[in-house]
Amino acid sequence: MQYPNFGSDGLIPAIVQQLESSRVLMLGYMNREAYEKTLQEAVLYFYSRSRRKLWKKGEVSGHVKKVHEVFWDCDEDVLLIQVQRGEEKEKKEGVCHQGYESCFYRKLNRKSYVLEVSDERVFDPKEVYSKARENLE
Amino acid sequence: MQYPNFGSDGLIPAIVQQLESSRVLMLGYMNREAYEKTLQEAVLYFYSRSRRKLWKKGEVSGHVKKVHEVFWDCDEDVLLIQVQRGEEKEKKEGVCHQGYESCFYRKLNRKSYVLEVSDERVFDPKEVYSKARENLE
Repeated sequence: MQYPNFGSDGLIPAIVQQLESSRVLMLGYMNREAYEKTLQEAVLYFYSRSRRKLWKKGEVSGHVKKVHEVFWDCDEDVLLIQVQRGEEKEKKEGVCHQGYESCFYRKLNRKSYVLEVSDERVFDPKEVYSKARENLE
Repeated sequence: MQYPNFGSDGLIPAIVQQLESSRVLMLGYMNREAYEKTLQEAVLYFYSRSRRKLWKKGEVSGHVKKVHEVFWDCDEDVLLIQVQRGEEKEKKEGVCHQGYESCFYRKLNRKSYVLEVSDERVFDPKEVYSKARENLE
């Protein structure tokens, strides 16, 4: 397997883009193991810097994203991963733990520079994450 | 001015997306000064980690990108910046120093995992950068 350039912390930033809408959904960090598992299983794995462990995207929420294509940048130190919607296409899914389709749900007002919510919630995070916890128990 | 969360190195990753095509073009890093100048002038500024200095995107190549919208992610530690094409719309422009529209011009073959060029060059980097150097001299 060919590897990109991981940083001095062993991580590489990975931009996630929705294939169907071209929306940028999030940026996560991968270590070598997350990179390997993402390619092998064609679903997203990241390394959580705060929890210091591997995590499978959507493991708790059930909103699993299928990997479509993996791009490397010119310096081979950034990844762009295009993902497809999961199996339950009708269900409102999002990658953001705040309940939005994309983590980039706020933008700066161009005159005042004040941050404004520019998107609508697609799921109730309390409901999704509490149900998920019940199912795990 | 409201500020996002810069990392312990004083930098925040900024994803650049072309408004017209929705293509992800590159990822750069901004320090506080680059962030301020990007908002104030509505063109892209980054902090070069290798050269350890501020740089205006397109300063040498002339391929300057206008900022359209600036999004913050949920954790306020990643930026998504949508840009518009520069004034010379007919001219073939790219953000990549290798001559491509996007730095993500290579993707992994889904069977072999071998990296393959998946895009076409839009400009000749030798020509653009040597002309630019002549103009600067």
